[in-house]
Parts: sequence; structure tokens; C-alpha cells
Amino acid sequence: MEREDRNLAFMLRYENIAWYEDGKVRILDRRIYPKEVSFVTCTRHEEVRDAVRDMVTQSAGPYTAVGMAMALAAKEAMDRGGNMEEYLKKASLLISSARPTTRKRMAAITDSCIPVALEALKNGERADYAIRRHIVELNDRRYGKIRRISEYLADRIPDGGTVMTQCFGETIVGMMADTLRKEGKRVKFFCPETRPYFQGSRLTATVLSEMGFDTTVITDNMPAFVMEKEGVDLFTAASDAITMDGYVINKVGTLQISIVASRYGVPVYITGDPDRFHKDHRDVEIEFRNPQLCLSAMGVKTAGEGVKGYYPAFDITPPDLITGIVTDKGIYSPFNLDSYFLDGGEGEY
Amino acid sequence: MEREDRNLAFMLRYENIAWYEDGKVRILDRRIYPKEVSFVTCTRHEEVRDAVRDMVTQSAGPYTAVGMAMALAAKEAMDRGGNMEEYLKKASLLISSARPTTRKRMAAITDSCIPVALEALKNGERADYAIRRHIVELNDRRYGKIRRISEYLADRIPDGGTVMTQCFGETIVGMMADTLRKEGKRVKFFCPETRPYFQGSRLTATVLSEMGFDTTVITDNMPAFVMEKEGVDLFTAASDAITMDGYVINKVGTLQISIVASRYGVPVYITGDPDRFHKDHRDVEIEFRNPQLCLSAMGVKTAGEGVKGYYPAFDITPPDLITGIVTDKGIYSPFNLDSYFLDGGEGEY
Repeated sequence: MEREDRNLAFMLRYENIAWYEDGKVRILDRRIYPKEVSFVTCTRHEEVRDAVRDMVTQSAGPYTAVGMAMALAAKEAMDRGGNMEEYLKKASLLISSARPTTRKRMAAITDSCIPVALEALKNGERADYAIRRHIVELNDRRYGKIRRISEYLADRIPDGGTVMTQCFGETIVGMMADTLRKEGKRVKFFCPETRPYFQGSRLTATVLSEMGFDTTVITDNMPAFVMEKEGVDLFTAASDAITMDGYVINKVGTLQISIVASRYGVPVYITGDPDRFHKDHRDVEIEFRNPQLCLSAMGVKTAGEGVKGYYPAFDITPPDLITGIVTDKGIYSPFNLDSYFLDGGEGEY
Repeated sequence: MEREDRNLAFMLRYENIAWYEDGKVRILDRRIYPKEVSFVTCTRHEEVRDAVRDMVTQSAGPYTAVGMAMALAAKEAMDRGGNMEEYLKKASLLISSARPTTRKRMAAITDSCIPVALEALKNGERADYAIRRHIVELNDRRYGKIRRISEYLADRIPDGGTVMTQCFGETIVGMMADTLRKEGKRVKFFCPETRPYFQGSRLTATVLSEMGFDTTVITDNMPAFVMEKEGVDLFTAASDAITMDGYVINKVGTLQISIVASRYGVPVYITGDPDRFHKDHRDVEIEFRNPQLCLSAMGVKTAGEGVKGYYPAFDITPPDLITGIVTDKGIYSPFNLDSYFLDGGEGEY
């Protein structure tokens, strides 16, 4: 394996994202990856919920992790006896509550594990490994879709162009970079660092740079300057949810960069599937995380005593700021997301 | 002295900002203040230039420091003999080059020290202390103006209102807070942290909080979210220069927040005097600083190998985004800055 593909190849192995094996779920700790490769091991499904809540895994990782947590819950039910269905229903409710903003999408995954487990029991198979197989199948399907999304996105990027990113989506970003490289396109990337967790500098920029692209990290107050001075061909971000009324929920900062992009006439492309579980953006609950995180950086305190913090994990970008939603079926206007399903789109688990 | 006024009172003593005494210039190190009170001592005028360039002092501090450097240069000329005027002219050129973006304004100060020194020599006085006295007089005048600016700004802030700030201007922010307190106004502040140096969290927020105001630090990707969700009555920032064609040069991020404010209908008030040395914003050279600073935070590395940094210290906000320029003579439209001088404004040294 070439050195430059280390991150992408590593991240594309599900075992390295979140994996159930024999009563344990092991999750890559992305709070320190890629500086260190270290795993958090959970021996109860509640611990997986806590790990997802505490940002151990990010991007598509949480969806794999909550599925693997259901395999663990099935093992717990097997060990203690009693009613498997009842136990898994309770577990699904608890696990899918890890992140309020994406609860519905997580519940769709965790609930889908219950009939799988019951079917396995009926056939005399182990319910935990049946659930893991089911999650692997869902992942295969998701990664196939991400590959197609990446190709549609790469189509929008000119050779010699400049792209601004936001948010860590290692699969999207990595696959897009892989596609660009196959097409022989030279592209320059500007990655805002994405405080308070620095995913932009730690993860997105590292993946792009290792894959051979000219990659520059800027602080989160610089996108307007860069768009004005350096020229940016497009701004792209992944999404935690895209509501059917055309709003994008994504890491905080996406809204602000989209407003700035609109001022400079820079097109905004958001990757991800419209979410049929979220009809209306007004029903989305924005998750607030530990405000102390905004009063320190890389573990060092930045503000004096008595000062408060404030940490909304996501913001909501309205459709008038979005040029296109890039899906596995093509690129859609945010005002016209029904077309995606009419074209055979499935929406993402 | 009340605990809560510690910072303001401390910062209002020129001795604590930058001070010449007996062949030495002592500068408060604001890279670590207020966490620690520590001074950088310079024994040659070139070292003061280096300290200003390296961000030892900020806000109005550099203008005091370059003046004190001229006192030091006069002492050097006294010690070595030779032509005082020639030596000071060379020193003025070197010292005022510390920061390209504000070079003209600095040169106006350092050049003004030369006749002061020659006059002192003629009268048999020490040229170095004559220059220090001259700089103190300039500061007195400047601080009197800042007090009046603060009062005009405080007038725009409603009781019970919410204000977003940008940039460390301890004198402006401190005096505005002092005025608000005298008027009995309760005001809530949101302070973006201002990467990469964290002046917003380390300095602005600390001053406001110590003076008894409800103060919240946010990361630089959150202003849009806060304006949408929390409501903000006005956005205010200081300025490094205001060109006569109505453009504001200030710490990077000001442009971006002003664009966002415009989207949400939040008024943008910039404090400072129109700068007659800068007729046209296109003549302003934006200073780029060490790009490595954007690849770390509080001294800890954030990005992987091979990733580049990029650090423009300032950005330029155009007049269409600015509601008012708050001066010592009142509030002016950025499109109409000649009025300031017609009203007797002097512009700032």
C-alpha cells in the first residue's frame, strides 16, 4: 500500500471504524486519529452510546457504531436469557439517543437490527453475528453510494481549480480525492480548521495532503478572505441531515461559509442524501455540547475565569444558499428534493 | 482598586503598555497577558521593531511602543555622538516598518519625534525624555478620543441588549464597558475567540467578564449561528486603519462577520478615526504572518505533515457592509468620511 493512501485505505476497512466481536465493540478514537491509532473498547451497549455521544467516532462512523452496539445488545440478551425482542427495543431506544440531531436516522438503523436478530434466533443462528452481517451489508451499500456521490462531486471540480471544504467526511473527501486523482486533475484545497475539535486540520487536511493534493489549513475566521483574495471555485461540505424542505444540518460553520460563498458567487455543493425521516427543518433539534470545549484548544485553557462557553455542534443552512445537493443519483436543487426519490433514490440508512 | 477593574486600570497606565527609561524600552507581553504579567525588555531600537513585528504588543500598544523606540534611538545617538537628525531619520524608517499594514500611521508618530528631539537638544535638554514626554502627550490625546468614541458607541447599545465583538481593543472595549456600567446598562457579550492568537477569548472576553458583564466565548465558526439563534443587537470591532474611501482594515474575521451581520440585518459599528494617510484601500498592503501559527493552537500542533498554513493578519471590509464609523466626533457613514475632518476631526496619530 502506498504511504499516501494510508488514511483512506485504513478508514475504508469497517474493522477500523467500529467493530463487534465476541461481546465487545471496538471504536477507532477519532479525537486523536490520525496522530495516534487508538481504540475505545465497550463491553456494554450503553458504553457505545456514551462513546458516540462523546465524539469518539465521527462522520459516517457513528452509524456503524450504533449498529455494532445492537450486536452487543443481542449478545447481552443471549447471555442473560429473557425476551430478545423486548431487550433489543429498549437498547435501540437508548443507543439511538446518542446524538439528538441525528436520532431518527440512527433509530432507523438500530430498529432494523431487531427483525434480523429474531430471524437469526428462529434459524438457530447467533443473533449478534447476524446483526454484524446486516450492518456490514448496510455499510457496503452506503459506501457504494458514497463512491457515486464522490464522482458527481468530482465532476463539478475543474482541473487546476481551488476547493474549500468544511467538516470531516473522510469517506466522501477521500473518495472524491481518489476520483480526482484517477481523472488526473490537479486541485488545490483550503480546509478551515473546524474548531473546537480541529477536524478540518487534523483529519480532512491530512487525508487530502497524504493523497498528494496541495492542501492549506486556515482558521475559521479566514474563509471570506480566501474567497476574495485567492479565488475559490466551489465550497463543499458533507451533511449530518438534509431535510425534505431543503435545509442542511452540518457541523457548525457550514452556514457561515455558505453565507460568505453566496456573497462571492462561489457555488455551494452539499453531499448526502435527502432524509425522509426529517420533513421539516424546524423539527430538528440542534445538539449543544460541553461549552467548556470552546474555552480551551488542544486541551489548553484560552479564556479567563468567569467567562462562559457556548457550543452548538451543528448549524442549519437554508436552501437559498445551496447550489446543489450531491446525491448518489445526481445533483438536485434543495427546493426539489422529491425528485431524488422519484429517480429511485433510497435515502441513506 | 476593585478586582473587576484590574485589567482596565492596569492597561490604562502607559507604563504598563510600553515605556522608555534610561536606555531601555519595556513592553507588556500581550501574547501571554492576562494569564501572566510579563515584560519584554529592549536595549536597542531594532529590538523594539522586532517585538512589535512579533506581536508582543497589540491594539493601541504598537503606537506607544514605536514612539518609545524613538526615545531609545535618541539615547543611542546621544551615546555614540554624531548627527542626531540623521540617526533618528534612519531609526524612524526602520521602526515604522514593523507592520506593513499600519506603516504610514506608525511613520507619522516616529517622524514626529525628530523635531521634538532637535528642539530638546537646542534647549540643552535630554532628547530621549523629551520624546517620551511627546509620546505621553500623544497618548493622552488618543485616550481622550477613545473615551469619546466609547461614549458614542455605548449610545447605540440598548439596555438588556446583546453585542458581538471582534478584535482586542482593550482601551475601546474597556472604556465602552465602563461607560455602559456608569449608565447602568445590562449588556450580554458574545466574543469570537479570534484564532490563531485567541485575543477574543484571552483578552476581550476577560476584560468584559472582569468588569461584570455576561460574557460568552464562541469559536470563529459560530457567529452566524449566534446571530440567527440568540439575536444580536449590534456587531462592533475596532480597526487598524479606515481608508478615506470607506474600507476598514482590521483583524482577519471582521470581513466575514460583517458579511454574516448583513445577512441577518445586524448593524456593524467600527470604531476608529478615518486615516488621512490612506486615501485608497487598494494601496493597503495586507501583512502575512508566520503560516505555521495556523497549524497549531496554544503551542500544540493540529495538522499533519505536508499540510500548509496561511495567515493573513487582517482583512478589508468594504463600506457597503458597514453601518457606521464611530469616531470622537460622532458616527459617520463610511461613504462620507470627509465630513469627519470638516467637523474638526484630527484623525489619529
